[in-house]
Amino acid sequence: MKPSLPKGIRDFLPNEVLKRKYIFETVEKVFKKNAYVAIETPTMENLETLTGKYGEEGDQLLFKVMNNGDFLKKSDAQAFEERNSSKFAHSISKRGLRYDLTVPFARYVVMHQNDISFPFKRYQIQPVWRADRPQKGRYQEFYQCDVDVVGSDSLMYEAELVKIYDEVFTALNLEVEIKVNNRKILAGIAEVSGLSDQFMTMTIILDKLDKIGEAKVVEQLEGLGLSNEKALYIIELIGSSCLEDFEVAFQDSEMGQLGIQELKDFHQYLDVVTTNNKVVFDPSLARGLSYYTGCIFEVKSLETEMGSIGGGGRYADLTSNFGLKNMPGVGVSFGAERIYDVMEELGKFPETLSVAPDILFVTFGAQEHIRAFKWSGLLREKGIVSDVYPDFGKMKKQMKYADQINVQYVAIIGEEEMNKDVVSLKNMKTGEQEEVNFDALLTKIDR
Amino acid sequence: MKPSLPKGIRDFLPNEVLKRKYIFETVEKVFKKNAYVAIETPTMENLETLTGKYGEEGDQLLFKVMNNGDFLKKSDAQAFEERNSSKFAHSISKRGLRYDLTVPFARYVVMHQNDISFPFKRYQIQPVWRADRPQKGRYQEFYQCDVDVVGSDSLMYEAELVKIYDEVFTALNLEVEIKVNNRKILAGIAEVSGLSDQFMTMTIILDKLDKIGEAKVVEQLEGLGLSNEKALYIIELIGSSCLEDFEVAFQDSEMGQLGIQELKDFHQYLDVVTTNNKVVFDPSLARGLSYYTGCIFEVKSLETEMGSIGGGGRYADLTSNFGLKNMPGVGVSFGAERIYDVMEELGKFPETLSVAPDILFVTFGAQEHIRAFKWSGLLREKGIVSDVYPDFGKMKKQMKYADQINVQYVAIIGEEEMNKDVVSLKNMKTGEQEEVNFDALLTKIDR
Repeated sequence: MKPSLPKGIRDFLPNEVLKRKYIFETVEKVFKKNAYVAIETPTMENLETLTGKYGEEGDQLLFKVMNNGDFLKKSDAQAFEERNSSKFAHSISKRGLRYDLTVPFARYVVMHQNDISFPFKRYQIQPVWRADRPQKGRYQEFYQCDVDVVGSDSLMYEAELVKIYDEVFTALNLEVEIKVNNRKILAGIAEVSGLSDQFMTMTIILDKLDKIGEAKVVEQLEGLGLSNEKALYIIELIGSSCLEDFEVAFQDSEMGQLGIQELKDFHQYLDVVTTNNKVVFDPSLARGLSYYTGCIFEVKSLETEMGSIGGGGRYADLTSNFGLKNMPGVGVSFGAERIYDVMEELGKFPETLSVAPDILFVTFGAQEHIRAFKWSGLLREKGIVSDVYPDFGKMKKQMKYADQINVQYVAIIGEEEMNKDVVSLKNMKTGEQEEVNFDALLTKIDR
Repeated sequence: MKPSLPKGIRDFLPNEVLKRKYIFETVEKVFKKNAYVAIETPTMENLETLTGKYGEEGDQLLFKVMNNGDFLKKSDAQAFEERNSSKFAHSISKRGLRYDLTVPFARYVVMHQNDISFPFKRYQIQPVWRADRPQKGRYQEFYQCDVDVVGSDSLMYEAELVKIYDEVFTALNLEVEIKVNNRKILAGIAEVSGLSDQFMTMTIILDKLDKIGEAKVVEQLEGLGLSNEKALYIIELIGSSCLEDFEVAFQDSEMGQLGIQELKDFHQYLDVVTTNNKVVFDPSLARGLSYYTGCIFEVKSLETEMGSIGGGGRYADLTSNFGLKNMPGVGVSFGAERIYDVMEELGKFPETLSVAPDILFVTFGAQEHIRAFKWSGLLREKGIVSDVYPDFGKMKKQMKYADQINVQYVAIIGEEEMNKDVVSLKNMKTGEQEEVNFDALLTKIDR
């Protein structure tokens, strides 16, 4: 039998795991410093927790886990006769795989509300599963990385999260632009344009400005019933990054004024910390999810065309779906899989990330082999990643392996080295070779 | 709607995640030093990869994932009419959740044999899923932690893995006993007792010696057709931990002699490294899995009655199920969930493991709040876990929160502190309070 994996599902090779961990550990370190704590939720949730939370399309992309045992006993025979797959599925499946981190987080907050102190600052780095059609760069199992604070509406957290973005991408050596907007600014624009009833449609159109260009956006706005003049005015307005222009525009929009005030409050905090990346006000930024109510964020790489590698925003209500009201929050995501691709493309992973050991012992006899194991153990005690080739003899085979694994130092022990209590240390990069005793070896290898 | 989780499935609270990570990171650090590299396999495997690998009971405990879309179209109507759940399941499910780490590892080695250098030293720390009936301490989703080397039959690796056990449990501050035996020793005993045909039955009986006592074991051995004298001889033999006794006993068993030789070779390596925990030869040790062919290991806590917290052994063939022959290996597991329970029971987690920040700022006005955010940011830059309570004013509420999260230092900023450019730093453990400027604060908190 030739083994295979389901389509859209990946193994990770050692060097891939190493790089992925590098990203996650970098992110985690920043989260921790900022007093966020990790939680974990299980892979399987009750289907009733998941169903209806992601729209109709999302429901169809949920992976459902079959009930165990003699599950047909309680199955819906009528649904089967009707070949109604979705109705039948409900009768033989109670559990589904985690589809995102937000819904499980909401469930978690409600279930553990008595174990948690609010504001609750949590991060979560876990895989999710979606039955999307597999294609290049899109997988059915992939990691999400979310950081949120719930139980407070202080705008300090908006600044904290933007600062976290800045710190993480600085640590990863990626140049980014952090775009900021506020849903209430968009609502203000809708209000002063008489488009409050078509708020979502309008934001979707404005969000496309980068992609389809000004002329098309004007055309589509006119389609909503705006005059050409009004449409051009909106384009001009969202082309501005001056809050003053919006103060003028929003004289008659309380909502718009509130949006301006929130951005100002946010900046009072942001301005007292240093950031390495540009934080820019972009009034055309909309973000897809309709549950955002205040500030919204998006991060773009300045070094590649990869699109968004992070985003998030303020929401008024996380948990009322699960019966707990008044739980506002703000959170951002890191597009971990995309960040990986960007770093790979730009060669930004540190060269020191290597799966090769620091040193490999090769030997020419049973006693030499045991001595190599002993010395290797002593090096390991000093924190050095040391290894011993398992078979002695055959120099060529051993050196070929050393080449394959790309190890920098090879310590050779033959009869002569054994007698002199040394190794012949070969630097595989320079070709240099010298006899060294244990102390000299340690000094040489220790980094 | 009141949210819930499926039975046997857990969330992890922040302090639990912290402790679990502490174990995993400790283990990983040791693996890495010993030149093992991490791999990851996906949650979902093709069912044909999993089915038939874990016995009939295992097959029943596999979680199966339903095919997506209109899955009834291709379903087995006849199986449905017969209410044959297991046959029907095959027609609507192609994927299953990982049941252990060994079978996916075997599949991985075969699929990636051209990307891997052998010997391949890998570790894997990932969750697995089993539809076991939930009960105290038994979950349907739990972590396994395996470390294996494949592609070599050198007994150096047996010594390396025992040393790894020793290092990990030393680092975790747990006292353990590492039991060692060899399947060939057991085969030798069977051979010299004329029980070679009933090898498995015999080892199962001998393995129960601790639990059911000598008299019952003798009785059961007699049930296999042994004389009372022979049965008593076996008991005496496996009561010995002297290899010399076995050399005498195995004069007519080539297999038994080979087992002795392997244990001696293993010890040649083990003897040149230092171990903190006792490594003992226990000829009654059998380990359940029948695929072990050489040395076998088991780790027991000496401080609690928890039973085995680790085990493993040498196998002759990992991958022939998947079409790749001649892939011997040796590996051990860490019972991560049990290790957690033991450490919790014995209070062995370091006290420094805390989800509380190092310091919390509480403030009495908008400007004070912004100053707190600024100072907090400066402390974070120094690696200090600093936090700011989001609302200013209300001293009582803020101090109550400080109490709840169990933070040691609270930095208070009121009007006076603001004017003097200081904070009033309160040590919540001692009650001490003093005014400090930023530099003094940093010195005080930095650890």
